[in-house]
Amino acid sequence: MTRSWWGWGEVEQEVTAAEVGTLVARASALLPDHDFTPHDPPEPASLDLPAPRIDVPPRLQAIASTEATDRLSHARGKAFRDVVRNLQGDVGPLPDVVVRPRDDDEVAAVLEWCSGEEVAVVPYGGGSSVVGGVEPRFDGPAVTLDLGRLDRVLEVDATSRAARVQGGVLGPHLEDQLRPHGLTLRHFPQSFEFSTLGGWLATRAGGHFATLHTRIDDLTESMRVVTPAGVTETRRLPGSGAGPSPDRLFLGSEGTLGVITEAWVRLQQRPRWRRTASVTFASYERAVDATRAIAQSGLHPSNCRLLDPAEAFLNAGASTSGGVLVLGFESADHPVDDALDRALAITAEHGGEATTHQQGDAAGAAASWRSSFIRMPYQRDAMARRSMVVETFETACTWDRFPSLHAAVTAAAQEAAERVCGAAVVTCRFTHVYPDGPAPYYGVYAPGRWGSLVEQWDEVKASVSRAIVDHGGTITHHHAVGRDHRPWYDEQRPDAFAAALAAAKSVLDPAGVLNPGVLLDAGRRGTLGA
Amino acid sequence: MTRSWWGWGEVEQEVTAAEVGTLVARASALLPDHDFTPHDPPEPASLDLPAPRIDVPPRLQAIASTEATDRLSHARGKAFRDVVRNLQGDVGPLPDVVVRPRDDDEVAAVLEWCSGEEVAVVPYGGGSSVVGGVEPRFDGPAVTLDLGRLDRVLEVDATSRAARVQGGVLGPHLEDQLRPHGLTLRHFPQSFEFSTLGGWLATRAGGHFATLHTRIDDLTESMRVVTPAGVTETRRLPGSGAGPSPDRLFLGSEGTLGVITEAWVRLQQRPRWRRTASVTFASYERAVDATRAIAQSGLHPSNCRLLDPAEAFLNAGASTSGGVLVLGFESADHPVDDALDRALAITAEHGGEATTHQQGDAAGAAASWRSSFIRMPYQRDAMARRSMVVETFETACTWDRFPSLHAAVTAAAQEAAERVCGAAVVTCRFTHVYPDGPAPYYGVYAPGRWGSLVEQWDEVKASVSRAIVDHGGTITHHHAVGRDHRPWYDEQRPDAFAAALAAAKSVLDPAGVLNPGVLLDAGRRGTLGA
Repeated sequence: MTRSWWGWGEVEQEVTAAEVGTLVARASALLPDHDFTPHDPPEPASLDLPAPRIDVPPRLQAIASTEATDRLSHARGKAFRDVVRNLQGDVGPLPDVVVRPRDDDEVAAVLEWCSGEEVAVVPYGGGSSVVGGVEPRFDGPAVTLDLGRLDRVLEVDATSRAARVQGGVLGPHLEDQLRPHGLTLRHFPQSFEFSTLGGWLATRAGGHFATLHTRIDDLTESMRVVTPAGVTETRRLPGSGAGPSPDRLFLGSEGTLGVITEAWVRLQQRPRWRRTASVTFASYERAVDATRAIAQSGLHPSNCRLLDPAEAFLNAGASTSGGVLVLGFESADHPVDDALDRALAITAEHGGEATTHQQGDAAGAAASWRSSFIRMPYQRDAMARRSMVVETFETACTWDRFPSLHAAVTAAAQEAAERVCGAAVVTCRFTHVYPDGPAPYYGVYAPGRWGSLVEQWDEVKASVSRAIVDHGGTITHHHAVGRDHRPWYDEQRPDAFAAALAAAKSVLDPAGVLNPGVLLDAGRRGTLGA
Repeated sequence: MTRSWWGWGEVEQEVTAAEVGTLVARASALLPDHDFTPHDPPEPASLDLPAPRIDVPPRLQAIASTEATDRLSHARGKAFRDVVRNLQGDVGPLPDVVVRPRDDDEVAAVLEWCSGEEVAVVPYGGGSSVVGGVEPRFDGPAVTLDLGRLDRVLEVDATSRAARVQGGVLGPHLEDQLRPHGLTLRHFPQSFEFSTLGGWLATRAGGHFATLHTRIDDLTESMRVVTPAGVTETRRLPGSGAGPSPDRLFLGSEGTLGVITEAWVRLQQRPRWRRTASVTFASYERAVDATRAIAQSGLHPSNCRLLDPAEAFLNAGASTSGGVLVLGFESADHPVDDALDRALAITAEHGGEATTHQQGDAAGAAASWRSSFIRMPYQRDAMARRSMVVETFETACTWDRFPSLHAAVTAAAQEAAERVCGAAVVTCRFTHVYPDGPAPYYGVYAPGRWGSLVEQWDEVKASVSRAIVDHGGTITHHHAVGRDHRPWYDEQRPDAFAAALAAAKSVLDPAGVLNPGVLLDAGRRGTLGA
């Protein structure tokens, strides 16, 4: 399999002609005037890349690459704006060198070299960032530290159901190594195939499941982090009250405080019982109330995905006036029929009409949803090549604020996309639900103009980000901050915490070489260029 | 009601003569040679207190006290060693002044005054610390900041089930204010009656319940913290991936980074369904395995308290060779019979013999356990007055390490207590169980010598702390670090994190006045005396 240098995933997994035909037919029915001519990605060899500005010291040459394709494929993540810039042959900031360390000592050696030379280092897992997290968008040379060779499960503790795992392992390879033990991390972000454990930890990733143990934060027992100031390793503990949690400082640090090379993670048995159901509603408001009641019931569904009418129509082909709630329960220990029945009783109280699936169907439906979920980024790329603006953004807020946030965000997206693109469809689904609030995830589909797609999307994104932050949401629930979310993150983050974080960075990364511009300005105290 | 200045709780709640009679009769059967003569606490007026070393500025005089009883009652927490020193009339470090701010501005004014004068400030909630967290054990004058006047629920969001609450509210008063809304925080640490929300947050308190939403960390939606460098307030969010969690830096900061004056906390409906059972085992090893299987089942019992044979005998009057597992399930939404049945099937697979209770009994049994749980500290004080060493300590570890940790800790406690006291009973119960490990809680009961009790306990404590840290435990699961746990905390905490924490403190508390000696040395950079 060949990783695409310009778009999502693997070249061999690209959308088929038939898939494209369906997508284009569906879109052109809505947008008869749009120009769906496909634009091909440029040949990497045809692009004019600047020469590397730094020399790799001899001891690191064996793990360093300055090949054009390596530099290009590590230059940015996989956001819509990244893919479009690649398709346009728009070579932006590039790493000068890509290094692929084989162990912690080599990670430390890279950090030592870069700290000494004041060269920026961008830690890189699967490269699936959609927020500019791996793009060397700063002055001066850059080394991208690709952790892909640190890809092993080193130890499994079946008694405590935990494993010691290297940070650079991709999702499928991790699960392959756990399967013989009958265990699973059960953490399935949409990027699962092309993102790494270290990346999940560094960005506080959210898994596929709707409630309970789904965020990587809660699946973390301990971490090993190589910083320019030394290695920090916490002890494996199921819980502790010994001061502020050291792990929680590194969770979400997005490569700015150190490089996560290992973690002990909490595992689960593979589920044996599964039940799913779909519930349609005539009123979105009542559908939201039903979803909230389930989130507050203590039933802990594995899936509790409320699709609004537009999302239900686009992604499930369902025509409803109030949306569809997709419910699922799973357990490795006991049947989940009663839990599903109780959840459906709650939806019935709110006017929902349920269709349940049998256990076999349930596994099938779950697999089919998961596979379509995993196909989405490939489809986005196919449409981007055809001048469509296709992108998502996400947030979380408390239930009391959801109606006003949702109205404001939807209006902002619709208004901005219509202004810059002429037309737009805006969809919403909940990816996660908590007792105190949902994590809504929005999709925007609009006809763009080739050559202006990035600017068109950026205008929409600025507008929705403003609405999110003004209406009590977080600028990101699980996509991370990176460089793209900085203005709104800075607004959301208390100043005193920003100062504390910068101070912590100044001792862990005294030369300020780690991922400058992410979370903190490159120019601040303790960061490059200060 | 009158708070005891020397011991636990309220004077009017002291053990009765009948209670003492039973306790002494039981203990003297085991220890016929022990001298059970009770020692009375001294009169505060008889104690020779040093004069306050600082003058309160005029604008703060209305909220300041230098009364002897105020200074004495705020001088230390409620550990065994604190109570014994009080009983002995051993006046140690005292606050020079106790201030009781009425709002955030007054908190800020106190911090400004103390930062300007380089006077240490000890934030004080309910004063129930058992780790020296509120004792001004450092050079120079001290101001104790008693937050008891900040005791109101300011706002309730019934939709999201959350409330904005002031940090100084005691447990019962908090629940009284939530009850009319049909909601509860459902956080019941043993200190519940005499500890505050702000104290729980600052120390990462563990609640009464065994699994799931029981630690205050997970019940926290946002926090407001007054620091010498300004006020920091996070936004209310059910979840967020925007950088490292600001709240998680302040959770567990034990008054060293700021004063927690408000928080939005996650609430629950009051439970309607309850079932409980007791399961006896012939083998402790099998009892532990059964408990682990339940912790890993996804059944989420509210109570899953494994008492070892000694604990079961002392605190439940049950004679078993393998101990007793006390199981409870609660829900506000649905019956819990099936969950209990499944849990009992698991215990049966491990050789457990169950006795179930009816719903009415269950409420009764739960209430009776809770009331005896809440009486324990009063009983400890009664026995301390009679020269008994009676104290507890706690930890958490992964399941794979529990057998060796437990053997080592029990042996260390037994050996040390026998060496210094001649005889000892050591008991263990699990207060919390996680899928990856238990939180064992130990009790030590030994005959002491009046005048040497503190030294005797300190020797036992040093020995068990060594065993805990050497065998993969945490020096504290929910009692916090304070000053008493520092040597072992320092060993457990990665150096790089210690440096990051000190750096964060240096910007939030530039004069280093906040609770010197807790978590960080008073003499380090950014702390008083540097």
